[in-house]
Amino acid sequence: MDRILRVDMAALAARVEPLPQEYRLLGGRALTSRIVADEVDPRCDPLGPKNKLVLAPGLLSGTPLSSSSRISAGAKSPLTGGIKESNGGGQTGARLAQLGYRAVVIEGAPSGNGWWLMVVEPNGARFEPADDLLGLGTFETARRLFDRFGKKAALMVLGPAGEQMMNIAGICNTDVEGRPSRLCARGGLGAVMGSKRLKAIVMPDCGWKPPVPVDESLWKIASKAYIKELRTQPATSVRYPQFGTAATLELVNKLGGLPIRNFRYGQDPRTDAISGFRMREIILKRGGRPTHSCMTGCAIQCSNVYTDEEGNEIASSMEFETNGLLGANLEVFDFDAIARFTRECNDLGVDTIETGGAIGVAMEAGLIPWGDVDGIFRLFREIRSGTVLGKLLGQGAGTTGKVLGVRRVPVVKNQTLSAYDPRAIKGNGVTYVTTPMGGDHTAGNTIALQIDHLDPAGKVAISRQIQLQTTLLDVLGFCSFARGVLNATPQTFADLFNARMGSNLTPDDMMAYALDVIRREVRFNVAAGQPAYERLPEWMREEPLPPHNAVFDVPEEEYSRIWDL
Amino acid sequence: MDRILRVDMAALAARVEPLPQEYRLLGGRALTSRIVADEVDPRCDPLGPKNKLVLAPGLLSGTPLSSSSRISAGAKSPLTGGIKESNGGGQTGARLAQLGYRAVVIEGAPSGNGWWLMVVEPNGARFEPADDLLGLGTFETARRLFDRFGKKAALMVLGPAGEQMMNIAGICNTDVEGRPSRLCARGGLGAVMGSKRLKAIVMPDCGWKPPVPVDESLWKIASKAYIKELRTQPATSVRYPQFGTAATLELVNKLGGLPIRNFRYGQDPRTDAISGFRMREIILKRGGRPTHSCMTGCAIQCSNVYTDEEGNEIASSMEFETNGLLGANLEVFDFDAIARFTRECNDLGVDTIETGGAIGVAMEAGLIPWGDVDGIFRLFREIRSGTVLGKLLGQGAGTTGKVLGVRRVPVVKNQTLSAYDPRAIKGNGVTYVTTPMGGDHTAGNTIALQIDHLDPAGKVAISRQIQLQTTLLDVLGFCSFARGVLNATPQTFADLFNARMGSNLTPDDMMAYALDVIRREVRFNVAAGQPAYERLPEWMREEPLPPHNAVFDVPEEEYSRIWDL
Repeated sequence: MDRILRVDMAALAARVEPLPQEYRLLGGRALTSRIVADEVDPRCDPLGPKNKLVLAPGLLSGTPLSSSSRISAGAKSPLTGGIKESNGGGQTGARLAQLGYRAVVIEGAPSGNGWWLMVVEPNGARFEPADDLLGLGTFETARRLFDRFGKKAALMVLGPAGEQMMNIAGICNTDVEGRPSRLCARGGLGAVMGSKRLKAIVMPDCGWKPPVPVDESLWKIASKAYIKELRTQPATSVRYPQFGTAATLELVNKLGGLPIRNFRYGQDPRTDAISGFRMREIILKRGGRPTHSCMTGCAIQCSNVYTDEEGNEIASSMEFETNGLLGANLEVFDFDAIARFTRECNDLGVDTIETGGAIGVAMEAGLIPWGDVDGIFRLFREIRSGTVLGKLLGQGAGTTGKVLGVRRVPVVKNQTLSAYDPRAIKGNGVTYVTTPMGGDHTAGNTIALQIDHLDPAGKVAISRQIQLQTTLLDVLGFCSFARGVLNATPQTFADLFNARMGSNLTPDDMMAYALDVIRREVRFNVAAGQPAYERLPEWMREEPLPPHNAVFDVPEEEYSRIWDL
Repeated sequence: MDRILRVDMAALAARVEPLPQEYRLLGGRALTSRIVADEVDPRCDPLGPKNKLVLAPGLLSGTPLSSSSRISAGAKSPLTGGIKESNGGGQTGARLAQLGYRAVVIEGAPSGNGWWLMVVEPNGARFEPADDLLGLGTFETARRLFDRFGKKAALMVLGPAGEQMMNIAGICNTDVEGRPSRLCARGGLGAVMGSKRLKAIVMPDCGWKPPVPVDESLWKIASKAYIKELRTQPATSVRYPQFGTAATLELVNKLGGLPIRNFRYGQDPRTDAISGFRMREIILKRGGRPTHSCMTGCAIQCSNVYTDEEGNEIASSMEFETNGLLGANLEVFDFDAIARFTRECNDLGVDTIETGGAIGVAMEAGLIPWGDVDGIFRLFREIRSGTVLGKLLGQGAGTTGKVLGVRRVPVVKNQTLSAYDPRAIKGNGVTYVTTPMGGDHTAGNTIALQIDHLDPAGKVAISRQIQLQTTLLDVLGFCSFARGVLNATPQTFADLFNARMGSNLTPDDMMAYALDVIRREVRFNVAAGQPAYERLPEWMREEPLPPHNAVFDVPEEEYSRIWDL
């Protein structure tokens, strides 16, 4: 797995390179960010040929260890203008690792107008025209590719949004059953892939070839310890398997931090209709799957399959962020509607958070009424067909707000905040303004902590700790639900890392490693002409959020020193 | 004139304050930028209540000296995100000075939804509802206000674009005959005025009360020397009086730097139809006015009145930048069409450069064909009525390009470049990337110099010199055509300054003063989270511009040190 596949889209050629010695211990986010920082001009046009799209499985991806096979995509983001890493579940992380690649670096752009698909092979890659797939949704695209390359292929595909190089476009990874519904969603990395005119990346079946740990005996001990802890913690053993991420909605609503009506309210009794509990009830009644794994071998199985009353699948999976941004935030308190939104977003190949943010802002501007399900579908059609309005929404909430003249736009670094209003969930607010990634909870979500989320005190230290831990998860390929295990047993994580890589890092060394990753990312952003830390939008520091009437009040003097730059 | 009028729009109240001692020698751009830098949070929302709109006549405005009564408007720009000063001709600069104000500082925003007009009086200001004027073009707005406040009032008004807080919106100053056609055009300052819900600022007649110079005998000597030089130099004595700015088109076309078809070509024989020579011919034949002054007492009279074949006025004035950006750049080689565009832009209250840039990008995206005059009028109607497409264009070329997926967008700091392609006119390219003002030739236009504009050598020093001189003009209230006089006789300028202010500055002191102004502006931008210097768009450094097949090649290492920060 110590090889890099370097792809020149201008020449439609790929070559295998040895992993540079200084990248020896890097994987996932550490490697995507390092290659972007080392090779991409921070001030380049993110949709021009000088940007590079880097894909990297986590260091443990492809091993049989539960919940560790995520794939990172990295580039300069057209949405935030800064460096971005976005990781996704599904089957591609494990496959890329098993094909023997630590990273795929996609450079340049084809000179003609044609579109391509890239077939990744154990010793290179080949290219085939993809013009016949243009305009297709991700599901039909995936169906045709499975027909050609076999059901066991793992795919990364773009939908119509990625083809149109929209900022809301993600890269869609296929799950265990082949749904292209596991997105590297945030930051418009689908647009970067679109700028390379790659409709799909196909990773054909190569048999089951898990990477071999350097220290197999330590690996056995550490992986046992990991699984034991995963099966002991209530979140990963009971809550996520039963309710998935959807149960987070009750919690955030209770804390008064759920986005309602474009982040105008933090709590609403109508959310009972879209709670995790209610979702499970509906799924069980209709014969869907309340628990389901997105990648092979996951012990948590937080995913689900949501069906209609006849038992036909609508969407997999229903997630808290989608229920928040495309549900509560738009005043749609109806799971069937949200499930159809989810399906549509997966087929368009878009980030449900950014899309929900943009539609919320469009509602604020009066384009369609709050809660107007048919209106939302009309907007999806505008996006799909690329009308001016569709393209505008496709730029995300920030640009939509600027153009439509809306001041209440919930973005940081031009990116829609996740479904935790930072006025009520202050640790996440600190994450939004200090992560190099923009308004993105996946960089460091404090919600699982038993703390007073309203109190600004101590939130900088808490966000810092969680951001560092999350970075390690993103390096190893772990899903974020493994953070509880990392927090409880950091030595286990160091053991897994060392066993796999033949290294000798202490838990403290690993946190220093994570800090180095983040600092490099921040330096890239500064070189791109961005500030080293951000602010929440002015109105979030002034407009009280009911029911707690909270504003964001973590002092800038405090959070601006978070990385000791 | 040593007083500041401070306006609180939240309270609809104004009070007169003494000029702080440290602002004693500041006027025009120096004062708007100083107040913005001292009082406005660089990271505030430019369209929120924390931004301030500062108006300041030049230090010589209101004196009888020719071409010295311009008015500066300053704020944090919603277009560039940085500090902005934009100055305009017409009658308001002299009036504000004669009303006794060095500056007007407009803060806050009204709490309700009403719109207002502010009547500036010698000892304060009063406010009247302006809701009856909403939606009106600037001409009808001005007509109604002259009816109410007398023909001799001087006005600053917004059109529909400013009301909609569009980035293309300027602030329209009335000229000698009352046309609202003298814009503080660039940088979206009309949007900032709109965010204060001020439809118009009325400065009623106060008699002719020119500011009295401190040293009247020196003033007499220096003003004589100034006028003599103005009447000697060929540009100000022959070329501008005869052809106005329109004659610049032949020169720039000859140099291969005129924007044709969204900056795709630098030269086109069809531009013969829109040359300054041709314009004068048409105007003379139809009985318009080939020469005309925008402000009382101007000896240059570069303005003009363009009529139709029946002798009815279409627009005043036809300017090079408009002929470039809304003519050549859109492949409209027809003066009658451009005159009607000019009229429409003045009535909408928009910057013709930014509007031309946005329409050029929309044409590049295929929205309407090149040269489609009817299509352009259709787009103007979209802007006026605020459709989604109209609002998009109203954000300027940068956002239009992002949303429509166009890579060839001619902006720096999100602002459309003036009608000098920086690949052929390299000194202006240096100005675009180094001025804190964005892609704006008014910060330092090198075109009048007899140099090899294609050669990158020496252009940093040249742009620096011109930017410093231009800053001084912007401080004193001079029109940029006085730069030739300043360059030839810097002592005369120092004498005028010293006579007026009672100071004792040498020409070198004045250049140091200008450098201080620019450095403060750059520091504001850096504090706003911007880089200290910009880059041209990637494609302008790579795509050769016919006929010289030039790219922009002034080294970044060289121009990044221009202000020795």
